[in-house]
Amino acid sequence: MQSKPAQDDKQAIRESVNTWLAASKTGDLSTLLDLLADDVLFIVPGKEPFGKEAFATAQEQMKDVQMDATIDIKEIEVVGPWAWMRSFLTVSFTRDGKAAKHSGHILNIWQKNPDGRWVIKRDANFVKPE
Amino acid sequence: MQSKPAQDDKQAIRESVNTWLAASKTGDLSTLLDLLADDVLFIVPGKEPFGKEAFATAQEQMKDVQMDATIDIKEIEVVGPWAWMRSFLTVSFTRDGKAAKHSGHILNIWQKNPDGRWVIKRDANFVKPE
Repeated sequence: MQSKPAQDDKQAIRESVNTWLAASKTGDLSTLLDLLADDVLFIVPGKEPFGKEAFATAQEQMKDVQMDATIDIKEIEVVGPWAWMRSFLTVSFTRDGKAAKHSGHILNIWQKNPDGRWVIKRDANFVKPE
Repeated sequence: MQSKPAQDDKQAIRESVNTWLAASKTGDLSTLLDLLADDVLFIVPGKEPFGKEAFATAQEQMKDVQMDATIDIKEIEVVGPWAWMRSFLTVSFTRDGKAAKHSGHILNIWQKNPDGRWVIKRDANFVKPE
């Protein structure tokens, strides 16, 4: 059985995930950036790992894209101020009436900030066009 | 500054990595399997995550392949009985005189067994043909 604090932390991480999905949908970049560690790294197929600035630039280029995402959280393991999470993400995009769907597995490292907020530290992301 | 135990654990993980690379080279499947948690999951592009049994089957099919790998460990973070590691792996294959080279980034979760051995729990693996 898990301790109460670990359960609370898992719940807090799930809430961060929900905040992330809602902010993706509304294009709220500042909320998205608040959920990333300053030294976050996204590890994706076919390019070099990239950080917060490159993520922000990519998001700005997606301004005209409607996005809606659902996530299936497969597991979360909390250890003190660290956690790892495995999930499957499905994202629907719409731009100028054209639709596309991307999906894939993600392995995340989360870090708990001194203020108690959980932020993404590493994101190994296999999301690609279906 | 990191505590002595954390440094010792990092060193132990590096030794597990070296054991892994040496066993890959000699095709020592039993040593490779000993470095995997029983419920390990490999997360790779283009297929569903797979476990220890599927890994063993794939290794057995590689029996005639000469393999030599080098790894660049970018970071290791230890938290109690858990650790995460980011690395870049380069693997050279030779079969019947034909050579191929695969490489890519890896994000690993490691777990420390009660007996003190570090084993791979999750392996998000972007290694692909160069």
